Amino acid sequence: MSGENHTAWKAGYCKERKLEKTDAAFEGTQSPQGLKVKPLYTGDDLPTGLEGNYPGQQPYMRGPYASMYTGRPWTLRQYAGFSTAEESNAFYKKNMEQGQMGLSVAFDLATHRGYDSDHPRVEGDVGKAGVAIDSVEDMKVLFQGINLKNVSVSMTMNGAVLPIMAFYIVAAEEQGVKPEELRGTIQNDILKEFMVRNTFIYPPAPSMRITADIIAHVANSMPKFNPISISGYHMHEAGATAVQELAYTLADGVEYVRAALSKGLKVDDFAPQLSFFFAIGMNFFVEVAKLRAARVLWSRLMQQFDPQNPKSSMMRIHCQTSGVSLTEQDPLNNVTRTTIEALAAIMGGTQSLHTNAYDEAVSLPTAQSAKVARDTQLILREEADCASVIDPLGGSYYVESLTKDLVDQAQTLIDEVEALGGMTKAVELGIPKLKIEESATKRQARVDQQEEIIVGVNRYRSDSQGDMDVRDIDNQSVRKKQIEGLERIKKTRDNAQVQTALERLKVAVTTEENLLPFAIDAARARATLGEISDCLESIWGRYQLTVGGVSGVWSKQYQESSDYQNLRKRVTEFADKNGRQPRVLVAKLGQDGHDRGARIIATALADLGFDIDIGPLFQTPKEVAKQAIENDVHMVGVSTQAAGHKTLVPQLIEALKAQGAEHIQVICGGVIPQKDYDELKQAGVKLVFGPGSNIIDSAHSILSLLKTD
Amino acid sequence: MSGENHTAWKAGYCKERKLEKTDAAFEGTQSPQGLKVKPLYTGDDLPTGLEGNYPGQQPYMRGPYASMYTGRPWTLRQYAGFSTAEESNAFYKKNMEQGQMGLSVAFDLATHRGYDSDHPRVEGDVGKAGVAIDSVEDMKVLFQGINLKNVSVSMTMNGAVLPIMAFYIVAAEEQGVKPEELRGTIQNDILKEFMVRNTFIYPPAPSMRITADIIAHVANSMPKFNPISISGYHMHEAGATAVQELAYTLADGVEYVRAALSKGLKVDDFAPQLSFFFAIGMNFFVEVAKLRAARVLWSRLMQQFDPQNPKSSMMRIHCQTSGVSLTEQDPLNNVTRTTIEALAAIMGGTQSLHTNAYDEAVSLPTAQSAKVARDTQLILREEADCASVIDPLGGSYYVESLTKDLVDQAQTLIDEVEALGGMTKAVELGIPKLKIEESATKRQARVDQQEEIIVGVNRYRSDSQGDMDVRDIDNQSVRKKQIEGLERIKKTRDNAQVQTALERLKVAVTTEENLLPFAIDAARARATLGEISDCLESIWGRYQLTVGGVSGVWSKQYQESSDYQNLRKRVTEFADKNGRQPRVLVAKLGQDGHDRGARIIATALADLGFDIDIGPLFQTPKEVAKQAIENDVHMVGVSTQAAGHKTLVPQLIEALKAQGAEHIQVICGGVIPQKDYDELKQAGVKLVFGPGSNIIDSAHSILSLLKTD
Repeated sequence: MSGENHTAWKAGYCKERKLEKTDAAFEGTQSPQGLKVKPLYTGDDLPTGLEGNYPGQQPYMRGPYASMYTGRPWTLRQYAGFSTAEESNAFYKKNMEQGQMGLSVAFDLATHRGYDSDHPRVEGDVGKAGVAIDSVEDMKVLFQGINLKNVSVSMTMNGAVLPIMAFYIVAAEEQGVKPEELRGTIQNDILKEFMVRNTFIYPPAPSMRITADIIAHVANSMPKFNPISISGYHMHEAGATAVQELAYTLADGVEYVRAALSKGLKVDDFAPQLSFFFAIGMNFFVEVAKLRAARVLWSRLMQQFDPQNPKSSMMRIHCQTSGVSLTEQDPLNNVTRTTIEALAAIMGGTQSLHTNAYDEAVSLPTAQSAKVARDTQLILREEADCASVIDPLGGSYYVESLTKDLVDQAQTLIDEVEALGGMTKAVELGIPKLKIEESATKRQARVDQQEEIIVGVNRYRSDSQGDMDVRDIDNQSVRKKQIEGLERIKKTRDNAQVQTALERLKVAVTTEENLLPFAIDAARARATLGEISDCLESIWGRYQLTVGGVSGVWSKQYQESSDYQNLRKRVTEFADKNGRQPRVLVAKLGQDGHDRGARIIATALADLGFDIDIGPLFQTPKEVAKQAIENDVHMVGVSTQAAGHKTLVPQLIEALKAQGAEHIQVICGGVIPQKDYDELKQAGVKLVFGPGSNIIDSAHSILSLLKTD
Repeated sequence: MSGENHTAWKAGYCKERKLEKTDAAFEGTQSPQGLKVKPLYTGDDLPTGLEGNYPGQQPYMRGPYASMYTGRPWTLRQYAGFSTAEESNAFYKKNMEQGQMGLSVAFDLATHRGYDSDHPRVEGDVGKAGVAIDSVEDMKVLFQGINLKNVSVSMTMNGAVLPIMAFYIVAAEEQGVKPEELRGTIQNDILKEFMVRNTFIYPPAPSMRITADIIAHVANSMPKFNPISISGYHMHEAGATAVQELAYTLADGVEYVRAALSKGLKVDDFAPQLSFFFAIGMNFFVEVAKLRAARVLWSRLMQQFDPQNPKSSMMRIHCQTSGVSLTEQDPLNNVTRTTIEALAAIMGGTQSLHTNAYDEAVSLPTAQSAKVARDTQLILREEADCASVIDPLGGSYYVESLTKDLVDQAQTLIDEVEALGGMTKAVELGIPKLKIEESATKRQARVDQQEEIIVGVNRYRSDSQGDMDVRDIDNQSVRKKQIEGLERIKKTRDNAQVQTALERLKVAVTTEENLLPFAIDAARARATLGEISDCLESIWGRYQLTVGGVSGVWSKQYQESSDYQNLRKRVTEFADKNGRQPRVLVAKLGQDGHDRGARIIATALADLGFDIDIGPLFQTPKEVAKQAIENDVHMVGVSTQAAGHKTLVPQLIEALKAQGAEHIQVICGGVIPQKDYDELKQAGVKLVFGPGSNIIDSAHSILSLLKTD
């Protein structure tokens, strides 16, 4: 019966689609994500053994808990922070009145990178992409009037995780809250920083020691706290496919388990406290299946450590909707995108969720956009009836088949990493970074060629864009306030006690002792974040990442394209006329480590025949000017993702001028609100490329600029 | 194995939820929609025989076509129309440039009710909630520059379906397009008008004759056109449950088939051209399952007519996201709501879709909000990858189980209707209207008591609401232009020819001939919509609907509530003091037939002890004033849903004053933009209740107003 119907369906399908009768049409095509997609799934596509799956039971495919949202819905947890601790504190309190359930702190880049706000390298970064925290005093203000016993707090911190954990524990202590009462999560996932996010401070190996110290300390004295949030989010945002995000995140997880075991812990002492963090992008079904697959994989991978507690192999997940899926164009369309992503996260069974605001393609959220983002979750919970049935897509032929495909493909990639000797090794070799970069570059080419459509960006563009209020941070004033705070604390504290605490910390670094208790003592004495970080830097040094670009990946997508050939011709003409190829320094200024955009454009321009220098991360304007002059480039392209451009780019132009190099042109690309364009152009920036710029078009503009020079 | 896991899951579930171990928790609870919802669905919940289901095959559960969206995505069809034909035409052209695929015309209420724009009863309605069409000349302007051969056109017209179909056919003819080339749909579903929407003109039986005439004419000469769109949409919007929407819509469908058969047609001559129209509300899974269930039911119901063509039992569906789910408060949250609903429609396998704009809780969409609504569909299609797999939720234990529940419950209700003698009979008895009203009243009570949460309305309210641009129609200027057009046409046409055509139509009404060809001849001669309608009205009369309210349904939800008891006490006190109960006339002005709000508030106030008069529909301000004075009411409550309030309510207050009845207070409720409040209050309106007003609170305000008088 079913067989006859299947045959009849195939015939009908071919007739409607005017296809030759061929089985190829039904076997599915390969999606850009590398997954097979068939037009129809039936019971024949179901993996075996599905019936044994129940929520709250290994392998946890249908959810980590037996009751899931029917008992308690997911936690609405919005990531936020900006400017000073006072301002962020006020914002948090407002949000909690309006239905937010947990806090999630965004720190500024100075804090991430272990610098106090008065450090000369962070002039453009203080208070910009998160809140500035220099000492335990700032941390206390951040949680003023918020009882840390009652609210779970998530903190996105990796590089400067030691001082931040110390400040948090001491701030709670001075509120009268004991460590064992603290609920929340610290990100503390350093491996992915070396792959994609770049807010590391020290080299991989000592960084892993800090991670393990935090896990061990939390395992011993903070039973309600998650000492790590193993994060695929930033891989996704850097352009990883779902399979890459799954595989590298779980391989990171395995590596952290090994690091904690090496501290002498038993697996069941800490594994139940490990938590995970994924991005949810626009591919609805893939994202649902990704979360289900992640739980299955983790449960399976953990068996090698022979856990006795079932919770040791039970994955709990925080999700955030995808920032890179948002568009600067038609910002209200981002409400639609975030809704689709949030729904996928919920159907995938996430434990907590951050929904992005519609203006986050260009700036931090305003009060209004933050409210819409929060309400998106409330509407899904209260109005759309998404929380009353557990794993509502369970059994779907398509979703179950996709879940299994993701498990299988990610397992293959994990096996590759294990064969290299694990994730620390793979990261040192730069392999995951390059693989992700390859995926990102391919996707950019697909978008530029309209093989993938982004509404309002590469098709269906509006003729006009309305004005939008965006949140702007006056970072000079924040920095001034922070410097005053630092001066105050240094005047009032017992400096001798601080020095003693810091010395003891420095000694501990050279032993095998857990560093966190020493950092806590230093925090109690009012040592600053910069001082604590310096202790470690003085011994381990600051890490410089050197990974070459991927070559030929971008141009491969364009072989047949006349656009591409024209561009190559223009580059050759330039070279013939000028005696050398156009030379561009792609630079990152300040502590903004997001380098996906910079690396994609560098790859593409190099493939076009440009002579490209990729500058190191975290440069000052003067350092970039020096390198530009030494390398005799025609142009500096600044990629900016974290709002430092208004301070730093004019300084770069000044620095070039001061050294007689006005002839080196400066262009800018990245997350730049429209309203900043004029200011940048007045400062001397020749071209500004906003989010969603087409590389082919951009390359033409760059060449025109170089020629007319 | 599965059995053991199931037992373990139950134990875990009870432990997490702190429940006694009882099977009741797992059997599910009854949702407000009357559907059973269990916390977990497994393979044991799957209905039997699922494996035989394929898209494009009876019973079409997985979709009407074998290739569904993989070959061609759903049609993006936005319902729009306002002001004059010129303005609507410009709006349509702009939308089609931006990705819209088909047109869907909204007519104004004057047109719906068969009045020319110069008729004194429609002063507040011309061009307001749709475009004003008085003659074939207007219809030609509406499609100027749009080739009717290439674009499929949907027209929402029921009451005045004869002149509108005639105008459309003649407008096409004068473009050089033949009837057999026309693609599109006319709503032509009169039964639901008597149940919920009220834009009927003639009594049920002659109205059904017109419906059948249209079906027969189309079956004979317009093979690409759908002569009817059997609509559950308005039932949903009036408060019907999913089961009611399904059952009454399909029972309507059966009734139309019988009407067409009675014209001597064979079932396969017209059944493949019947189309359906459903609303998609916020209950995600119920809405997905509803569309799947609808197709199964239709396929089953059609078997009684013994069709030979499989297409005769294949249901094709248009969907629109729910207007009543939108809120005036925090309008951007409506983008979230519409996205969720649109996704449900797509996963349910709709053939075409209208997505509402975020400002439609209070007004017609602006250019910007219309674009966001359209982009929602483009994003779902292009970015969310929702079109590459057929029936992606197929197999889901929950969705399959829900689909079967909906089929079974709707079938029971259909059987009840059939036992009454079919839908025309049931409608004449007013039974479906009252059943839907009961559901709507219960829901209102649940919302007022916060058992159902609407974000931003009865919980999570904002302290402040930003200003929003809303589209405002200057209906006096539209009316003036239309009247000029009518004068022009009456001067230039051959009036003798018009009279002959109208006489012939009038004669045909008394025979069994198909009326449409006569209407077409009249349209060719430039007879107006009002003239054609008058021919029929002169014989059949205009229908007055008289259906009593539901009593005790609202108060039953409140028995324990002290709020309710306090209100009753205040009403009693009023009666003691004034010698009679507070008496309120609930009135509808102009051609706005949306009476859900009016009837719910009337029911609630009556249950509270008010003496309530429900005025007839479609009254002029003078008629309402007369009734208010004759009934000696304390207050007139005007319910307004279609934007006529700014013209008509001040006229009502003037009319009361003119007859010395200033003491009768006037209040207003319904779809009223905030910016109109001042104008209404200056005109003398005492209270204005916007969308989402709580009835308990409103009743308190009304009593306070009466007491201070």
